[in-house]
Amino acid sequence: MKVGILGGGQLGRMLLQAAANYPVEVHVMENDADCPASHLCNHFTKGDIRNADDVFEFGKNLDAVTIEIESVSLEGLKKLRDHGVRVFPSPEALEIIKNKIYQKEFYVRHEIPTSAFVVTRSANDLRNYPQYFPAVHKAATGGYDGRGVQVLDSPGEVDKAFEGDAVLEKKIDIKKEIAIIVGKNEKGETAIYLPSEMVFDPALNLLQYQLSPADIPEEVKWKAEAMALAVVNHLQSAGIFAIELFVDKNDNVWLNETAPRVHNSGHDTIEGNFSSQYDMVWRIILGLPLGNTKKISPTALVNLIGNSHGIIDEKDYALNEILKIENAFVHLYGKKENRPGRKMGHVTLLSEDRSNLVYLANKVRHIWEDGGEEK
Amino acid sequence: MKVGILGGGQLGRMLLQAAANYPVEVHVMENDADCPASHLCNHFTKGDIRNADDVFEFGKNLDAVTIEIESVSLEGLKKLRDHGVRVFPSPEALEIIKNKIYQKEFYVRHEIPTSAFVVTRSANDLRNYPQYFPAVHKAATGGYDGRGVQVLDSPGEVDKAFEGDAVLEKKIDIKKEIAIIVGKNEKGETAIYLPSEMVFDPALNLLQYQLSPADIPEEVKWKAEAMALAVVNHLQSAGIFAIELFVDKNDNVWLNETAPRVHNSGHDTIEGNFSSQYDMVWRIILGLPLGNTKKISPTALVNLIGNSHGIIDEKDYALNEILKIENAFVHLYGKKENRPGRKMGHVTLLSEDRSNLVYLANKVRHIWEDGGEEK
Repeated sequence: MKVGILGGGQLGRMLLQAAANYPVEVHVMENDADCPASHLCNHFTKGDIRNADDVFEFGKNLDAVTIEIESVSLEGLKKLRDHGVRVFPSPEALEIIKNKIYQKEFYVRHEIPTSAFVVTRSANDLRNYPQYFPAVHKAATGGYDGRGVQVLDSPGEVDKAFEGDAVLEKKIDIKKEIAIIVGKNEKGETAIYLPSEMVFDPALNLLQYQLSPADIPEEVKWKAEAMALAVVNHLQSAGIFAIELFVDKNDNVWLNETAPRVHNSGHDTIEGNFSSQYDMVWRIILGLPLGNTKKISPTALVNLIGNSHGIIDEKDYALNEILKIENAFVHLYGKKENRPGRKMGHVTLLSEDRSNLVYLANKVRHIWEDGGEEK
Repeated sequence: MKVGILGGGQLGRMLLQAAANYPVEVHVMENDADCPASHLCNHFTKGDIRNADDVFEFGKNLDAVTIEIESVSLEGLKKLRDHGVRVFPSPEALEIIKNKIYQKEFYVRHEIPTSAFVVTRSANDLRNYPQYFPAVHKAATGGYDGRGVQVLDSPGEVDKAFEGDAVLEKKIDIKKEIAIIVGKNEKGETAIYLPSEMVFDPALNLLQYQLSPADIPEEVKWKAEAMALAVVNHLQSAGIFAIELFVDKNDNVWLNETAPRVHNSGHDTIEGNFSSQYDMVWRIILGLPLGNTKKISPTALVNLIGNSHGIIDEKDYALNEILKIENAFVHLYGKKENRPGRKMGHVTLLSEDRSNLVYLANKVRHIWEDGGEEK
């Protein structure tokens, strides 16, 4: 089968590492020929995934296409679907998710608990809704990895709000953030992974690491799983989905957002689960049996965020130190530029002992933050 | 770092899947642009690995080269080494291993127990050594995957012997065949994997599957490990090595042969060990810390040998059945032709329960042998 991936970042890269186990010829389109996925596919096309014509030209002779980022032309995907190319996720599911307004309305329509919100059309509009503060202000479109998202603690902070269509969400008093990956095939069968839990720096509100499975009461897990499955089933699309949820102080569970693709929170499934999220995608697209989502071992996951190391090569001190940890798996994404905030790689840790996972996750974090040279 | 792989088969393919986690640009040379590794590298060169000039031209601007098959031009590798390119394994180590006569003499020189043998120069020559029968007749050079190896039970069978330089080995009364993978870096540090055990069909003498770790007494394990380390240390070369050994009815251990590269018997380290043999290669070449050879779980390994399925695609019945086994990991090598005897892929099974591994290994074997169509 010939399958195209729209986007060539690290998610594409890991999809391609997994694809090599399957009978599939993979094509990738991305604007940058030096992107993390370009050299691992059977055929690379330089093109703009946001351009409908580029997307259609790229996919028209393929059996199926999928995405590794949301910013793909919906028009292009719809044309491909109408042309007979199987599209994962469906363009309609992506359309709902690409727009935060549609996404929130979708949750409400299907009675999936989500934070209270209003749709706003301008920054000034926010002043009409003091009752939603402290709030999270999310751009309707174009947000990604924290861009287009701002926390506004009081109406007094509206001055720094960005312009344009957005949702203003009432901030939830979060006890825990969790994420669930769900795969769904064209027969409608689903495979659900155990919830993972994000651990944030309480002062800086930055993600420090992730633990899987999440340490949550059974009842919270059941609720979260039911909500994740409801989202995927109501989207009426095959594919893989990452559902991010909040657990509040009263153990209520709230839908935060959904990604209709492989997701950062599922990186640890490569070593931690029998079938990784990447493996699952190929099973779904190729119509093979769904994979086993069971964990082989509990995991911790640490993102390696761009810093001042310069180019990460084999002499990088932090890389060498992390590779000495005997149950650490390092994944670098081959990005040519090391920019602050950019995801350069990740580390997965395997251990049956949760306190060991926490200890090692912090160790990896500190080694990485200390930088690329021996002190 | 820029690293070249000479050879583009499945071993190269799996090396490339692992390389994508590291800061390395990988070049591959192979005669066939459609080989399993060609599309997964940063740069592919069509060329003859047995040709000294091709090898030198391919490697001269790289930092290091390695091999995934023994049949590489020694002259080419020596020229590269003299040119300042790091070569894994050293050309001298490969020279010993490429020639079965040199290899046997090497074991004798270093007092590593190996079956009694004589060097023979022609088929007729075998008649002079009736005391070595039942015997194994191995061509000095060119043998690979069973080619150039024949069992001759009595001098009466000499008529079917092949011609040319060879070793005639006295056949060992084998209780068990085991294999050990050893990695060695340029500092001289070694990392040794637990022994694996090959399970053969007693009637047909065909490999059925492999179990790891091998079920052998501690003392046999110590002897085998000491012998494997002695081989690697006396070869005086960094790289990865697979050491195949026989255990006889009296629990004596005999060195069978050594491969100076990643090896079929180590495929299960991908899912079964913290650092796979493929991961280990990149750590060694890049000068990174050696990996952890500990097992995550006991494993079974079944080769998927070419059969009459025709091309293996996503509709292949056997593939679909095997993928339903919840602790099975399938690796297909993307070979365009499915020929009897050809290695088309492999399956690794993970389980803490050895009898379950045996059961599932046989199940995979039977599904595969039954063929690609529903009965």
